[in-house]
Amino acid sequence: MKSFLDENFLLQSKIAEELYHDYARDLPIIDYHNHLPPDQVAKNKSFANLTEIWLDGDHYKWRAMRANGVSEKFITGAAPSREKFQKWAETVPYTMRNPLYHWTHLELKRYFDISDRLNGETANAIYDRAASLLERPEMAVRGLLTKMRVETICTTDDPIDDLAHHRAFRSDETTFQMFPAFRPDKAMSPEDPVTFNNYIDQLEEVTNTEIRSFQHFIDSLKSRHDYFDQNGCCISDHGLSHLEAADYTELQVQQVFEKVRSGIALSVEEIRQFKSAMLVYFAEWDYEKSWVQQYHVGAFRNTNSNAMGRLGPDTGFDSIGDFQQGRSLWKFLDRMAEKDRLTKTIIYNLNPSDNDLFAAMTGNFNDGNVAGKIQFGSAWWFNDQKDGMTKQINSLSNIGLISRFVGMLTDSRSFLSFPRHEYFRRLLCNIFAEDIRLGELPNDTAWIGKIIQDICYHNAKSYFPFDK
Amino acid sequence: MKSFLDENFLLQSKIAEELYHDYARDLPIIDYHNHLPPDQVAKNKSFANLTEIWLDGDHYKWRAMRANGVSEKFITGAAPSREKFQKWAETVPYTMRNPLYHWTHLELKRYFDISDRLNGETANAIYDRAASLLERPEMAVRGLLTKMRVETICTTDDPIDDLAHHRAFRSDETTFQMFPAFRPDKAMSPEDPVTFNNYIDQLEEVTNTEIRSFQHFIDSLKSRHDYFDQNGCCISDHGLSHLEAADYTELQVQQVFEKVRSGIALSVEEIRQFKSAMLVYFAEWDYEKSWVQQYHVGAFRNTNSNAMGRLGPDTGFDSIGDFQQGRSLWKFLDRMAEKDRLTKTIIYNLNPSDNDLFAAMTGNFNDGNVAGKIQFGSAWWFNDQKDGMTKQINSLSNIGLISRFVGMLTDSRSFLSFPRHEYFRRLLCNIFAEDIRLGELPNDTAWIGKIIQDICYHNAKSYFPFDK
Amino acid sequence: MKSFLDENFLLQSKIAEELYHDYARDLPIIDYHNHLPPDQVAKNKSFANLTEIWLDGDHYKWRAMRANGVSEKFITGAAPSREKFQKWAETVPYTMRNPLYHWTHLELKRYFDISDRLNGETANAIYDRAASLLERPEMAVRGLLTKMRVETICTTDDPIDDLAHHRAFRSDETTFQMFPAFRPDKAMSPEDPVTFNNYIDQLEEVTNTEIRSFQHFIDSLKSRHDYFDQNGCCISDHGLSHLEAADYTELQVQQVFEKVRSGIALSVEEIRQFKSAMLVYFAEWDYEKSWVQQYHVGAFRNTNSNAMGRLGPDTGFDSIGDFQQGRSLWKFLDRMAEKDRLTKTIIYNLNPSDNDLFAAMTGNFNDGNVAGKIQFGSAWWFNDQKDGMTKQINSLSNIGLISRFVGMLTDSRSFLSFPRHEYFRRLLCNIFAEDIRLGELPNDTAWIGKIIQDICYHNAKSYFPFDK
Repeated sequence: MKSFLDENFLLQSKIAEELYHDYARDLPIIDYHNHLPPDQVAKNKSFANLTEIWLDGDHYKWRAMRANGVSEKFITGAAPSREKFQKWAETVPYTMRNPLYHWTHLELKRYFDISDRLNGETANAIYDRAASLLERPEMAVRGLLTKMRVETICTTDDPIDDLAHHRAFRSDETTFQMFPAFRPDKAMSPEDPVTFNNYIDQLEEVTNTEIRSFQHFIDSLKSRHDYFDQNGCCISDHGLSHLEAADYTELQVQQVFEKVRSGIALSVEEIRQFKSAMLVYFAEWDYEKSWVQQYHVGAFRNTNSNAMGRLGPDTGFDSIGDFQQGRSLWKFLDRMAEKDRLTKTIIYNLNPSDNDLFAAMTGNFNDGNVAGKIQFGSAWWFNDQKDGMTKQINSLSNIGLISRFVGMLTDSRSFLSFPRHEYFRRLLCNIFAEDIRLGELPNDTAWIGKIIQDICYHNAKSYFPFDK
Repeated sequence: MKSFLDENFLLQSKIAEELYHDYARDLPIIDYHNHLPPDQVAKNKSFANLTEIWLDGDHYKWRAMRANGVSEKFITGAAPSREKFQKWAETVPYTMRNPLYHWTHLELKRYFDISDRLNGETANAIYDRAASLLERPEMAVRGLLTKMRVETICTTDDPIDDLAHHRAFRSDETTFQMFPAFRPDKAMSPEDPVTFNNYIDQLEEVTNTEIRSFQHFIDSLKSRHDYFDQNGCCISDHGLSHLEAADYTELQVQQVFEKVRSGIALSVEEIRQFKSAMLVYFAEWDYEKSWVQQYHVGAFRNTNSNAMGRLGPDTGFDSIGDFQQGRSLWKFLDRMAEKDRLTKTIIYNLNPSDNDLFAAMTGNFNDGNVAGKIQFGSAWWFNDQKDGMTKQINSLSNIGLISRFVGMLTDSRSFLSFPRHEYFRRLLCNIFAEDIRLGELPNDTAWIGKIIQDICYHNAKSYFPFDK
Repeated sequence: MKSFLDENFLLQSKIAEELYHDYARDLPIIDYHNHLPPDQVAKNKSFANLTEIWLDGDHYKWRAMRANGVSEKFITGAAPSREKFQKWAETVPYTMRNPLYHWTHLELKRYFDISDRLNGETANAIYDRAASLLERPEMAVRGLLTKMRVETICTTDDPIDDLAHHRAFRSDETTFQMFPAFRPDKAMSPEDPVTFNNYIDQLEEVTNTEIRSFQHFIDSLKSRHDYFDQNGCCISDHGLSHLEAADYTELQVQQVFEKVRSGIALSVEEIRQFKSAMLVYFAEWDYEKSWVQQYHVGAFRNTNSNAMGRLGPDTGFDSIGDFQQGRSLWKFLDRMAEKDRLTKTIIYNLNPSDNDLFAAMTGNFNDGNVAGKIQFGSAWWFNDQKDGMTKQINSLSNIGLISRFVGMLTDSRSFLSFPRHEYFRRLLCNIFAEDIRLGELPNDTAWIGKIIQDICYHNAKSYFPFDK
């Protein structure tokens, strides 16, 4: 029997141990997509306690607390930090078999060297121990990243962002790089005319232009794309329920734009046309600058109207969706490929039932110029756990080339999430080791170890044009 | 190598054995949803032979016999009991790897202490042995339930049912409780005007009212809901292809009702409106009385027209469906949550490809007042086997809180189905034990054993308001 | 630890070894669906080198090379054979965990007795060794099939095919049988009027008739169905995204036919009506002649327009689709069953998320006359690997009767693909053996071994009316 969370956690054989400890463990981390706040990196923020660094903003934990019957007061409400932590600690044993149980104890161990199991009884002592450690300078944001051997992080930024924190950070001497990513979700969301026009007002301000036509709108966004590029950005990202690839003409899109600008709500078809057109614009610019474009698809968001009204988005009320993904994914990729304007692309899928579809469809648009050009991205969000990762790894292996996979990322808002790379690496080593153990791969750990190193680090290193 | 179906069946490690035998095995059974006939419980029916108790009415076995090339004469036809049993016995070896193979031998063992494998050669002896045992008084219905440590059963009853058998039963001294459940499927199925109006005729009779308007209809149904409540009911259930949550106005629904009442067939959209409205009415009443509401979704029913014409519904011609479940599930739950009228809810899903979606979506409507308020229900129907249960357990674990799960039920028409609780418990213990064995859960069997006891018994005990 | 690809490849226990070596290994092969070129069989073609026999036409390998960054020149382009092979060999190590890695080494071993791992370094030696072996007469097409104990192959042929090669072959003395299969995809694809009318021109020529009405069209096709039957055919096959079962009248279909004949493009609804009607015609004829009908559903085809333009269909740009399969599958099967005209049917599904649906729905149309009459076919195309086969085997086991399964086929264009039967047999034996090892099946290898022999050979032997 293995002890919980020991040094060979998730490694079920000697070969798995060898692959992990000798090949994967000590590699640097390229976290090419996350939601870390650039200001906190720039300012090297410190945290007072575990509630602040761990619970504030973590809607995974909030969901679990609600499911455990904890009152909102102790989740997003006004309860004191220590009480909130107590309620979380009491919930932790009930998260057994949920990834939270592993993440929680892995993070306590790796950042705070705390091996006790968190529960209602141990809550106070762990809270105090962590608070005292968090006072140390090396436990501020940059120290936390350095501790995990982070080499590169890429944040997620709106086109209107001035990237001031990124600029400030780049002038510092640091152990790691930070780049912005261009995420123009708001610029392609005309569903609510008021919100959309407010956004355009902000865009006018930041670009110092007057946006009186669709062409002005495009020009302004393009200037922000250029600006991001000048500030080290080489990645875009899009959060979509599904890709849109409706038919449209430029004239139609101009008219749709004018309609929403005059405050009139659009039809479903008009919204689809607008989104479809915008996706092509962004993809063209990404292609021109040799950026990598990312698409996160498959979520139902803000499903609980009461909660949305009280707490706003990203507070733990989202779901896996069951969209028809295939045809629009196909049409979008083909649209760009047909005009030979398809840049490197990563597509992340939220519904694991569609994994095989994504693995197959992405493979149709590799053009033989770049190994692994079109990527089926790593297990995302609700799938970011042992089963979910395993499913993504196996679908990609069975239907594509896992050897060319750019691997793991945190997608997290938290500076404590980086053990997820360790988790992924352990799991990957164990999966490959099982194949060796069962005679389904040759017992050639030098070769398999190299493939693992590629997936954990080198593939991402060569895929993303960070050093352009 | 393990022997087939020995005392450690499905238990693959010492820890699994410990968890099962020390924690799960001897707990009472709360079978909170089944289709047992209340009259047979009230009258403590005896059975003459295995064909009567086992084959009559079991469409799982019928499907298998048809797939095995057995003529309908020996399935639902006029063949003598012994010949029907012979044909079933000959089919049994061909059901290897189907859950029927396990259920069959588990039921022979637990109820009849028969360890022989059933096949064409052993059929006669087993038939005779069972027939002789079935003569004993303790092998009548109540004895069979007592033998399995059943504490509570909840049947499935139409609103027009007078619950006479439930009332008769409650005046008896018994070792277990029986409650009705309110299942108004017919009251929300206006697809065929004749059938629907016949149903309303019956409703008029049982409520001694004249139903001349939609309001009368609602009032009559509400009076039955009240009547069920007065007779111990605290659970409703709905069998639907998918939840309906179309937009509608009261006026529209009234008009739809009047249209179908005058014998005119409704449009697809009108049917959707009617169903959507009825679901809200029922859910409101369930909320007002603090009942638990259940939804069974995902089936295509009566797909074989010939068989439907000859044999009627529930005869083995249903299928897993591929409905778009997400949006209507979301809209219905949100509709009730928005008006703060969402009672405890269990949703059962027939298509395992949607498991993760259901696990995620149900989690969006936990409100922090009750632990595990919105439940992703146990593996249902075609999924009621090792793989299907494992998938449901893992989806719920990964995406929700398995620790708060209310666990297993038989959903069965048969008094011999209760070893399915044993099967579930063994499987659950083995799954949790594997996590311990692999170091993915701490080796703390006292704690894990308690969680298992919660899932097998205590969660259901506190979730359902049986002792209101 | 097991060596890679040793004699007990995929067999993880002594029981698995026993089941495979004592029961499955030496059975003949009935490859009841493939795409082998009949002319090459008739002419007993020889191949010059591995590029010719292995890479030309294998779009699985092409996809992998493109994903690995290999230029099209070395895939479908003009590069010399040896260079193409070199590029493939360099790609092979990057296919680890993809089925190509297993197929490649299994085929090298079984046909060429080459145990070296193929990669950039070993490419030349392996190329030369194989070329020298391919000169031998027993390495021509018929020898390759005989070597694998092939008893029967069924090719895939268009109704307008004259079956000349089949006729020539049947007059030879051979160790195996070859039959055509009737695949009228083009006859039910009126999407492009020009292509469709060209096809009808060819049909007119081969049937020596003038097709001036829908009835003429049907009569001509029927005469080809008769002709195929006279030439040993007893199987039809259809490649469809999904079954079509729209409502239509004969008059409507006649008008649709006349419309497309006059060169006018059809509406989506008209296309659906036409396809729905044609499926019924074909199914009627299959029923009348007691043929077995096959349906391959679930693919998105030719998704990459550029590649389609340059390379044509079947060049590696297809995908798993996410169609709503349930309702049309149901309606089609019910339509034929209702008129009692449903012949033996095999349905192959490309999207594994729908496996349980297919396993359930096919089971609704077994009529008790033939064991295993309606088959959920073996894992197809992208699923033709360990995980995919395992999923199909488990879905069929859990929801239907695996014991009545007609088993594996290659579906391949290559004469080197027959070790896939070995692969399937090993996997099947191991899956069943695991059940025995864990006590989930009785340790009765004589009985289980017989079931395995049925699935690997005898079920197909009795299911297909080859010797009519």
